[in-house]
Amino acid sequence: MNEVEKFIGYKFKNKKLLTQSLTHKSVNTQINYEKFEFIGDSIINFYITDWLYKKFNNEKENNLSIRRSQLVSKKNLSQISKKLNLHKSIKIDDNINISDRIHCDLFESLIGAIYLDSSYGEVKKIMNYISFYFIKTNTIYDFKGTLISLFKKGKIKNFFLDTIIYKKDKKIYVSKIEMNGFYFYGFDTSKKNAEMNSAQLAYNFYKKSIL
Amino acid sequence: MNEVEKFIGYKFKNKKLLTQSLTHKSVNTQINYEKFEFIGDSIINFYITDWLYKKFNNEKENNLSIRRSQLVSKKNLSQISKKLNLHKSIKIDDNINISDRIHCDLFESLIGAIYLDSSYGEVKKIMNYISFYFIKTNTIYDFKGTLISLFKKGKIKNFFLDTIIYKKDKKIYVSKIEMNGFYFYGFDTSKKNAEMNSAQLAYNFYKKSIL
Repeated sequence: MNEVEKFIGYKFKNKKLLTQSLTHKSVNTQINYEKFEFIGDSIINFYITDWLYKKFNNEKENNLSIRRSQLVSKKNLSQISKKLNLHKSIKIDDNINISDRIHCDLFESLIGAIYLDSSYGEVKKIMNYISFYFIKTNTIYDFKGTLISLFKKGKIKNFFLDTIIYKKDKKIYVSKIEMNGFYFYGFDTSKKNAEMNSAQLAYNFYKKSIL
Repeated sequence: MNEVEKFIGYKFKNKKLLTQSLTHKSVNTQINYEKFEFIGDSIINFYITDWLYKKFNNEKENNLSIRRSQLVSKKNLSQISKKLNLHKSIKIDDNINISDRIHCDLFESLIGAIYLDSSYGEVKKIMNYISFYFIKTNTIYDFKGTLISLFKKGKIKNFFLDTIIYKKDKKIYVSKIEMNGFYFYGFDTSKKNAEMNSAQLAYNFYKKSIL
């Protein structure tokens, strides 16, 4: 078993899938993790939806949807990826900086590769095994409320939030936040989620700007 | 077996799940299909991703992603729902018109209910069984190209397409089409998909406007 296999507690039947799942396109334009990431992303989304549905059975669909978008966010998945040390096994051009995007993609592609090597049942077992990484992030962080309170305290000069629905039948909401002269956009099929998305971007920007 | 069970070839162990999956919130604000739809949507996304990955193994991730967005679209899922006659078993307030949104939701919630009643393996079997409904829609329809050719032929007076990236690290593209004084927006994490989305909206509008 190599390092990655030890960390996730899964032994690949087809080692080529493991290698491909850790290969960035910069070192191989043909055989890399791009397509594994495509499939892994949808499995993770399904697993987390199922997990949330069962764990927070009394909550409304809208709340579950907010929880899900936080759990499947680049921020959260890249943290899990880092804890699993996936970046230590990556094959990538030395000149490329391993961004959170890449950390996140690595985790998604590994899950995709495990699925292709086995079954959804196997993926579920592994996800259950590493789900304690999710626990810390299963509380809904109220970015919008936090920003409003920072604005009231005078820590943010200008704050303006506006959410509109673009195409009614498509149920696509666009939330725009104007904060200290910068704009942040959130899109979603629910108004609450669209606002949460824009508020999260604005909050992350605020946090960086005060460092 | 009731009508729905016959159509999908699945017998529910827990009939309450079947009933709930066909109940609109207008007749029961508590026990309705909203949360089943939440879970069903993510299962369908996963199933179709897996199906496309295996069926079009030589295609790039970007193409697969376009195919997926067409297959999981409200338009396509509502058509499947209609073919399965799900609306004939819906419990809904008589004053509500059954829109494509509702047809689509019904299909998603039914799939969610089957999953909760059994397993992903069972859902996969049923989806395989009804996957011939997908076959007709597995060709990529080039909405953008069609619009451009309509514009060249003078059938569309004004056509202008502009795609920008909002937040680079979030990889969110917004594509805007201006056509005969109307605006159509598409959002996606890939530029091609964002353009396909806006072009699809514009094309649907064009088709309606010439009737």
